[in-house]
Amino acid sequence: MSTSKVTLPDVGIGDLLPRLKDQGYDTERVSRRRAWIEEKTGATLKHIGSVSFDTEELRGNIENPIGAAQVPMGVAGPVLVHGRHARGMFYIPMATSEGALIRSYERGMVALTRSGGVQTAILADENQIVPTFFFPDVATAAGFSGWIPKNIDAIRTAAETTTRHGKLTDVKCYQTGRQVLVNFGYNTADAQGMNMLVKATDHACKWIQANFPISSYFVFSGMCSEKRPSGFLLTRGKGKRVTAGALLTHEVLKMYLHCTAQELFDIWHSTVIGHLHANAIGYNAQYANGLTAIFIATGQDVANVVNASCGVTNFELQPEGLYVSLTLPALTVATVGGGTGLPTQREALTMMGCHGAGKAKKFAEIVAAAVLGGEISMGAAITTGEFVAAHEHYGRNRPK
Amino acid sequence: MSTSKVTLPDVGIGDLLPRLKDQGYDTERVSRRRAWIEEKTGATLKHIGSVSFDTEELRGNIENPIGAAQVPMGVAGPVLVHGRHARGMFYIPMATSEGALIRSYERGMVALTRSGGVQTAILADENQIVPTFFFPDVATAAGFSGWIPKNIDAIRTAAETTTRHGKLTDVKCYQTGRQVLVNFGYNTADAQGMNMLVKATDHACKWIQANFPISSYFVFSGMCSEKRPSGFLLTRGKGKRVTAGALLTHEVLKMYLHCTAQELFDIWHSTVIGHLHANAIGYNAQYANGLTAIFIATGQDVANVVNASCGVTNFELQPEGLYVSLTLPALTVATVGGGTGLPTQREALTMMGCHGAGKAKKFAEIVAAAVLGGEISMGAAITTGEFVAAHEHYGRNRPK
Amino acid sequence: MSTSKVTLPDVGIGDLLPRLKDQGYDTERVSRRRAWIEEKTGATLKHIGSVSFDTEELRGNIENPIGAAQVPMGVAGPVLVHGRHARGMFYIPMATSEGALIRSYERGMVALTRSGGVQTAILADENQIVPTFFFPDVATAAGFSGWIPKNIDAIRTAAETTTRHGKLTDVKCYQTGRQVLVNFGYNTADAQGMNMLVKATDHACKWIQANFPISSYFVFSGMCSEKRPSGFLLTRGKGKRVTAGALLTHEVLKMYLHCTAQELFDIWHSTVIGHLHANAIGYNAQYANGLTAIFIATGQDVANVVNASCGVTNFELQPEGLYVSLTLPALTVATVGGGTGLPTQREALTMMGCHGAGKAKKFAEIVAAAVLGGEISMGAAITTGEFVAAHEHYGRNRPK
Amino acid sequence: MSTSKVTLPDVGIGDLLPRLKDQGYDTERVSRRRAWIEEKTGATLKHIGSVSFDTEELRGNIENPIGAAQVPMGVAGPVLVHGRHARGMFYIPMATSEGALIRSYERGMVALTRSGGVQTAILADENQIVPTFFFPDVATAAGFSGWIPKNIDAIRTAAETTTRHGKLTDVKCYQTGRQVLVNFGYNTADAQGMNMLVKATDHACKWIQANFPISSYFVFSGMCSEKRPSGFLLTRGKGKRVTAGALLTHEVLKMYLHCTAQELFDIWHSTVIGHLHANAIGYNAQYANGLTAIFIATGQDVANVVNASCGVTNFELQPEGLYVSLTLPALTVATVGGGTGLPTQREALTMMGCHGAGKAKKFAEIVAAAVLGGEISMGAAITTGEFVAAHEHYGRNRPK
Repeated sequence: MSTSKVTLPDVGIGDLLPRLKDQGYDTERVSRRRAWIEEKTGATLKHIGSVSFDTEELRGNIENPIGAAQVPMGVAGPVLVHGRHARGMFYIPMATSEGALIRSYERGMVALTRSGGVQTAILADENQIVPTFFFPDVATAAGFSGWIPKNIDAIRTAAETTTRHGKLTDVKCYQTGRQVLVNFGYNTADAQGMNMLVKATDHACKWIQANFPISSYFVFSGMCSEKRPSGFLLTRGKGKRVTAGALLTHEVLKMYLHCTAQELFDIWHSTVIGHLHANAIGYNAQYANGLTAIFIATGQDVANVVNASCGVTNFELQPEGLYVSLTLPALTVATVGGGTGLPTQREALTMMGCHGAGKAKKFAEIVAAAVLGGEISMGAAITTGEFVAAHEHYGRNRPK
Repeated sequence: MSTSKVTLPDVGIGDLLPRLKDQGYDTERVSRRRAWIEEKTGATLKHIGSVSFDTEELRGNIENPIGAAQVPMGVAGPVLVHGRHARGMFYIPMATSEGALIRSYERGMVALTRSGGVQTAILADENQIVPTFFFPDVATAAGFSGWIPKNIDAIRTAAETTTRHGKLTDVKCYQTGRQVLVNFGYNTADAQGMNMLVKATDHACKWIQANFPISSYFVFSGMCSEKRPSGFLLTRGKGKRVTAGALLTHEVLKMYLHCTAQELFDIWHSTVIGHLHANAIGYNAQYANGLTAIFIATGQDVANVVNASCGVTNFELQPEGLYVSLTLPALTVATVGGGTGLPTQREALTMMGCHGAGKAKKFAEIVAAAVLGGEISMGAAITTGEFVAAHEHYGRNRPK
Repeated sequence: MSTSKVTLPDVGIGDLLPRLKDQGYDTERVSRRRAWIEEKTGATLKHIGSVSFDTEELRGNIENPIGAAQVPMGVAGPVLVHGRHARGMFYIPMATSEGALIRSYERGMVALTRSGGVQTAILADENQIVPTFFFPDVATAAGFSGWIPKNIDAIRTAAETTTRHGKLTDVKCYQTGRQVLVNFGYNTADAQGMNMLVKATDHACKWIQANFPISSYFVFSGMCSEKRPSGFLLTRGKGKRVTAGALLTHEVLKMYLHCTAQELFDIWHSTVIGHLHANAIGYNAQYANGLTAIFIATGQDVANVVNASCGVTNFELQPEGLYVSLTLPALTVATVGGGTGLPTQREALTMMGCHGAGKAKKFAEIVAAAVLGGEISMGAAITTGEFVAAHEHYGRNRPK
Repeated sequence: MSTSKVTLPDVGIGDLLPRLKDQGYDTERVSRRRAWIEEKTGATLKHIGSVSFDTEELRGNIENPIGAAQVPMGVAGPVLVHGRHARGMFYIPMATSEGALIRSYERGMVALTRSGGVQTAILADENQIVPTFFFPDVATAAGFSGWIPKNIDAIRTAAETTTRHGKLTDVKCYQTGRQVLVNFGYNTADAQGMNMLVKATDHACKWIQANFPISSYFVFSGMCSEKRPSGFLLTRGKGKRVTAGALLTHEVLKMYLHCTAQELFDIWHSTVIGHLHANAIGYNAQYANGLTAIFIATGQDVANVVNASCGVTNFELQPEGLYVSLTLPALTVATVGGGTGLPTQREALTMMGCHGAGKAKKFAEIVAAAVLGGEISMGAAITTGEFVAAHEHYGRNRPK
């Protein structure tokens, strides 16, 4: 073990984590690192070390590995989807430790299915990133803002030389003072795509730098709202923009959700007012619960839940019942790359026929339909008062 | 196996998940449910079924269990914390599948430690929920808005009869038209506390209903911003409001982050402009990455990352280097309840001496310090251009 | 005339405006300044010079005076108000150049009146300002955050020595990193109060600086959202927080607004979705139109329309018709000070019995009721298609 | 006088305003209406009645006219502008009743001029409106979202038949559930253009309705953010998107603003933090003050200040001094139509050579430069403490 130690008289010694051979992904080295941590911290890490697969598979997904978190996984469904890419009945793997969550989603999905299923549509499919360029003054920056649109073809060529799957689909300038934020949009096929985007865009930026006199640039400006909440996400989108909708009949409402269309609408109406007063981004009942559980189960980049949770749910009364829908403009999901190839995650994607190339749009539609199940079930639980009871019943693990 | 089948001529058959005895948490029944899903979907769920502990432990955390997701866990650190509750050197468990993430946080934490460590402080500790009450008109609602403050004591008594740990700390009315949103604040000790809050508040609402003529109420209005992004979170807060700050010296900046104080400040400055243009909530480099990885590892309610990611990072130049800080107003973390008692999660908390009662504030301070490591490392990687290279090197699992 | 001239070889000569004796408020000097501008710019300023009162009255309201803008003033109403402070039938002076605006508000006010009038209530009355204090590190700042609440009395004493009318009602700390934003709330009686606030707060800050070791402070942090749009305004408020509501009966809806309750509700519902997608602050049909016209007519600080326009309008179906309401959390209006004493402005306030001390709450309630008239009339015009026709008919001055 | 009276036993009598011949714009009829109000309210409206021009000129700008508000007008400047459309030295008419405002702007403008002037650029010029279309379900709406882009030419033809000046420049669909918000962008030349837009878009909607089976539509959805604050304005823009920037030299900073570049930067930095915590839209020192004063003086639709005040000001330290800039993405200004042709307003526009056709872009650039003067002067006043003193000195009209 080759730990480097630095003596800091004032603050004590902080031992660096051991740097092991080949970065230490084989079982023995993971084990040694875990033992090192156990010694340092006094913790016993038996379960963390109980990985059911060859730890070499962790390479590329994590550094300084010591094992795995085991997050409870359950299943909700079925949910019937009538999408452009997803068609049929699906069972949804969800990994969570929040009691009552799966029961709630399951109820919603069944209600949607019994009403005839959920229509879905992918409205856009474009991940994006916004590098920023600096100029000595406003006029020079304005010149650049005019130059970019004329050089899209060359910029595209530069970007796409770095990737086989990413396609540059859009470039748009947002000048602010003497700085120009340039929004690059890409189709990233079935990958979440941010690494691909960053690399391609950095290459494009270098081409730009070589062809227009700029002071400097950064490949990130924060404007892309990757893993952060922003109003921009609602209109610009990020990854899949997907919508899902269904007509809940009066009969299904009564039988499965124990409320009337009017009651469910009233909860929507009053909570919209709550969202407006909180200056929330969009409106939802609980996107994050469903998205997080599915993201963990299927090896998505879970931090993307922050952007994916920006959207708008709508409930509309009509004679036949309640039309319920949601729109997720920033659903950054993948069926290849990232954690999607890890053992349990690949299995979970396979449950929905969504592992591998050509499946991301299908997966996005299934996710949207599943999350819609949570929206209606949550709303119903509040209006009927079952919310408190359900958490009493299912969530027994909390401190009394 | 007692599945109920409903034949829907138009939409095909959607088999309900099997309802098993005692809800099916023992190993054999989890196994049967998994087999049922394998048969329905054609997937093989071998790794999902490889749970290292008794599946009865899943009860209260999930329904319809089929096993567990194994999420890669690594360690970053050390990070030296000078807090009010956390004091010393910590190693941080992080569960993620995003290559390069841990290496980036590790670098940042080491830089903070080598600069003398991170000061932290809990500024507030109050989770909240906002029921909403309905009245026939604006004047009656205004009467209620005036009545509530005079009856705080009785409301508190009603709320606290339902909980041993929750303390009602604040009640504030936000009238909007003829609806009155009433913000309840609670100290929830070491639990995340939402279930506790909902139950206590519902009880308080029933007392209110019995003592003031109201049309109706809902225990949720959405205003509390649980698991959703909102501006309200920044000022109202949710759970722990925590801040962390450190002075990075010129020498540490050069040696560990490969940039100057000015360069790191410049990236802050330019990305603040990006955030403003995106109408983001607050400003951060990548809170969600660190928070999500720690939340998964330690059994937090991961969906809370959405609210926890609303905060503000600040970088300030000064003669000795760069003062870096962050403020997380809505860090809803727990060391008891929820998923914190699950096997791998308890182990991860124990690594930081943070499992069990009396540890939540300590944990919140460690989280804030750890996340600050990510803020500076991310900024540095962008300014030096290492960001692209690091993802090339560590994140090898994406499609080429 | 004592103009100072500076020769700038590169950029030409920019003559400074003439500095006249006693700052030049008497008629002759205003005239000379106007003539100077006419000579410089070639414009004829005959009408601007046609002020109907002694120009010495402009002192304190403007510098470098050349006369007055004449903004068309009309009247809308009547609107019947059942408030806590305003009770009775009012005619509303509105100054605007937007054709059809007054006709639209008039229609709405009459509909409200014919439905039985508008209930109003002042829910809070507190203008605020947020100075910010700087500290060397997070821990010291946290000490300050704890020190402030213990010294409220002394801070109040310091603040109130500077003002006869302002009362310090609230002090609350928002620490962010090593900076502490301190929100001061004041009751400013019948004045808009910002000048009063700034002076009192600056005095309090000086007392704080003398009693706690702080690095420095600024009396403004921008957080108060004076004249800027923010989510904070919705919950914190600014000046008068006022609500207004009325039940529009089916008969009145049909006769005056030419639509049904359902149709008017549908326009609310669909435009809420539009607001959510735009990430708007709150929701309204057109607060700014009514507020601006009344603010100009009555000598308010018109720039405050920006904060005053942040609010929430709600429409709710009920058997008897449509309950319509609005809540304006940041209505910074005055009946003394600022432009309220100018000749035409004083006359306009007098039309509503709202000039002078003790009238600001009454005025705020009238404004809220009047603006509610615009909300319903605008909504109705869209649903019936009359919006286009009305602007064709009344707004004839635009380019064909 | 033909007033109609309605007796309402319960609520008293609310007399309708007199409907006079030809809507009552001639002097005698305006006088009669004013007398009617005087009688009703007991107010004397002498100054409101002192209009210096033929009241027939009010037709098209207002209904129920009783005269005019006289708003104090002063002049600030000079400001040297190096724009694409505005070039030269300008004096800015400002109508306000806020003491010290003009002196503050004047100081800023002179500082900018002495530093060599302000560069400006129009980055976009497109007003927009967002009708919304309703469909029975998500799938049908998705079909519509795909149909629209294929029919742009026919939609443009339909829209442009109604206007000689408006050009349809962009159509973009934002589907949300089963509702499709369609963003129409127009070049409106020198008019503010909303009336033109509404009429043209309504015509286009009728064409769409005749060619695609839609349930119904509304010409407004609120998404366009006309006269309301939203994040969408920052990226979508509204009217002129304009930027202005200048390098303030150390010498000018010291002489005119009494502070150093570092001090002025520090106030920017700390107030950005305040804006972020308030969840403000963008960042500014006081756009609304300058915009409102210029809008009133020049006959703009003053309510548009709400959207026009959404923008971002940036201060950047550099060796030679401080680079200051602002970006106003939603500056809806006009030099024809609306109130621009009224007597005092036309005179004010003429002072800047901005009255009539072909002048709107020039005017927008001048406005941006002038408002930048306020940004730096406000910042300087806070950092030096002169803010309190200036309001003491110039704003003497407030209650003591």
